[in-house]
Amino acid sequence: MEVQRKPIGIIRSPYKNAGDIPRDYGSTLGEVVVFEEYAQGLQDIEGFSHLMILWLFHQTEKYSLLVKPLYCEGVRGVFATRHPNRPNPIAITVVELLERKGNTLKIRGIDAVDKTPVLDIKPYTLRDQKTNIKTGWLRH
Amino acid sequence: MEVQRKPIGIIRSPYKNAGDIPRDYGSTLGEVVVFEEYAQGLQDIEGFSHLMILWLFHQTEKYSLLVKPLYCEGVRGVFATRHPNRPNPIAITVVELLERKGNTLKIRGIDAVDKTPVLDIKPYTLRDQKTNIKTGWLRH
Repeated sequence: MEVQRKPIGIIRSPYKNAGDIPRDYGSTLGEVVVFEEYAQGLQDIEGFSHLMILWLFHQTEKYSLLVKPLYCEGVRGVFATRHPNRPNPIAITVVELLERKGNTLKIRGIDAVDKTPVLDIKPYTLRDQKTNIKTGWLRH
Repeated sequence: MEVQRKPIGIIRSPYKNAGDIPRDYGSTLGEVVVFEEYAQGLQDIEGFSHLMILWLFHQTEKYSLLVKPLYCEGVRGVFATRHPNRPNPIAITVVELLERKGNTLKIRGIDAVDKTPVLDIKPYTLRDQKTNIKTGWLRH
């Protein structure tokens, strides 16, 4: 079974290359520009403070089951990381929605390079807000 | 640009049809069974209490930009909802990881039907944990 997917927009960000993205990107401003044919789907989005952006690791050419995370020693199973070299190279970033202008969403906290293809936008809801979490090897 | 994707496993759940899924599925037990060829990628996952499961709305045949959410009156822009009829019919559920047994993850809080194809598994981290959120039309 193969699944075909088509981008609905692109991310605008200050980062030209993956190597430019800092470890703390929480204050990085950017935009999601939704293609006109999908813009009507943005109706009602202004009421949400946070969004999940699903985007493509479009520079990933192959995957590894064991990867070496950035800033860390040793290798980890890819599903225990957010590393780009995944079997399905889809990223999720939870961003803050600052403003909508037509088909453009002004966002804060983005870690994608400029012109990254976007697959989906979802509202971040109470169900996504988990407390008392354990973050395994990331503690170290 | 078309993007091709291949499932890495399936969800086992008590729900045979979408109509069987209750509004509050927070305590629903299920499993993610990862195909053997990807099982090595689960290394180190046991340390995380919560995971993002990316799965396919595989029963979705077409999308709408305006949709009527379940349990709600009126229509909303699809990107302001988690409705299945999306341009790229990918779902995200943040679940609790109870136990790993080989290539099977025992999970709690799943809202997918049995045998749903899984695209990706990601650790839920501090960056996904947002506070002071506003949830727009969902408040009502």
